[in-house]
Amino acid sequence: MISKSQIKLITSLSRKKYRDQHGFFSAEGPKVISEFIEEGLDLVFLFTTEMLKNQSSVYHQITPAELKKISNLTTPNTSLAVFKFPKHEGLQHNGIRLVLDGIQDPGNLGTIIRLCDWFGVTQLICSKDTVDCYNPKVVQATMGSLARVEIVYTDLVTLLEAVNVPIYGGVLGGVSLYSEKLMQESYIVVGNEGNGISEEIKSLLTHKITIPQYGDSQKTESLNVATATAILLSEAMRLTET
Amino acid sequence: MISKSQIKLITSLSRKKYRDQHGFFSAEGPKVISEFIEEGLDLVFLFTTEMLKNQSSVYHQITPAELKKISNLTTPNTSLAVFKFPKHEGLQHNGIRLVLDGIQDPGNLGTIIRLCDWFGVTQLICSKDTVDCYNPKVVQATMGSLARVEIVYTDLVTLLEAVNVPIYGGVLGGVSLYSEKLMQESYIVVGNEGNGISEEIKSLLTHKITIPQYGDSQKTESLNVATATAILLSEAMRLTET
Repeated sequence: MISKSQIKLITSLSRKKYRDQHGFFSAEGPKVISEFIEEGLDLVFLFTTEMLKNQSSVYHQITPAELKKISNLTTPNTSLAVFKFPKHEGLQHNGIRLVLDGIQDPGNLGTIIRLCDWFGVTQLICSKDTVDCYNPKVVQATMGSLARVEIVYTDLVTLLEAVNVPIYGGVLGGVSLYSEKLMQESYIVVGNEGNGISEEIKSLLTHKITIPQYGDSQKTESLNVATATAILLSEAMRLTET
Repeated sequence: MISKSQIKLITSLSRKKYRDQHGFFSAEGPKVISEFIEEGLDLVFLFTTEMLKNQSSVYHQITPAELKKISNLTTPNTSLAVFKFPKHEGLQHNGIRLVLDGIQDPGNLGTIIRLCDWFGVTQLICSKDTVDCYNPKVVQATMGSLARVEIVYTDLVTLLEAVNVPIYGGVLGGVSLYSEKLMQESYIVVGNEGNGISEEIKSLLTHKITIPQYGDSQKTESLNVATATAILLSEAMRLTET
């Protein structure tokens, strides 16, 4: 059973404005939901078409038709949950911090969050025009990683102007990544899918680095931003081993 | 103007069976189409809703309604072209060859083809159960890269049993990628999204390698296969520089 006001609330969460207003986001499917519960996120509601084992007041059994009304998926799963945004402890000040300047594609952001989780980058800093990390497509792609990586949206100019460690940026025509020893105490910036790092941020980079291209440089498309980020983080991490 | 038999042919190309039967695939949008033309692929038909400048017999002006009938896109572009499969010179025998064992997702295959193009890997060898590289989603994602990388579907066991250079495979629990010096004359195998490399192929690997994980190993999802491939290829290429 689901009330009209619950339907209204949940469908509103497909928009960032309402997610921010409530401090809530939705997640779908038992696997994704149970990962967030295990990570200790606050569960607001859980709606499921399966038999309810748990008699908690936040659990509600609903029909497939009701689930269809609140689902963001083309083919709804068996359950949808609403969680409060995870709380993190604010900006940390050590290790490698990844900075995203204007990433637009939810799939790319999702892949990058999983990469941060894999490589132990616990903080991801995003420009304010980067796609929202609680966008339903990002949530479904990242699963538990979203709860383990602290994601901060902030003004990058203000942040980077105050920094006194190396700021690396992935650009075209920079120094070869393989000839640069990345410092463990640093920021790594990657830019928008079409336009790369904005001019304003580019002027704040201390090191402009490039992933060397071995194919025919006249024709090859640039690397996808998520695969470029994978290579940059791997390179930073390998240096902790050598 | 488009005939019924042309519509039937073109819509049939959304299925691998008919692509293979005709040796044709379709591509949509002026940018993608012009890249294939520049790469020298044989153009069979071009249908466009724009004013025709070229009076060649393979160019046909059509209405948006006709384009909608033949398009694979939710929002059709202005043009759709049919090309013959590119001809390549058969298996090459030097450098790094990337081997895919059962990749299922067209987006992943597309990203991997672009990576090959970037890193100058001119040959990509796929198991017969890997998603078809002329799948419309792969074509749209890879653009010209698809014409520049030779893609071969073959029986991996037969191929790898005959090989006498190192065969690296990305697995869980192998030797750290960063402690292994990848040979320039070698095969690199990556496996299916859910199950990794099949047991039969695993037994043919000469080196089992793993991208070290720095996050909480109990919880982190495995890396996406395209990002893992990016890291493996970058690592192989960096060694040509050092």
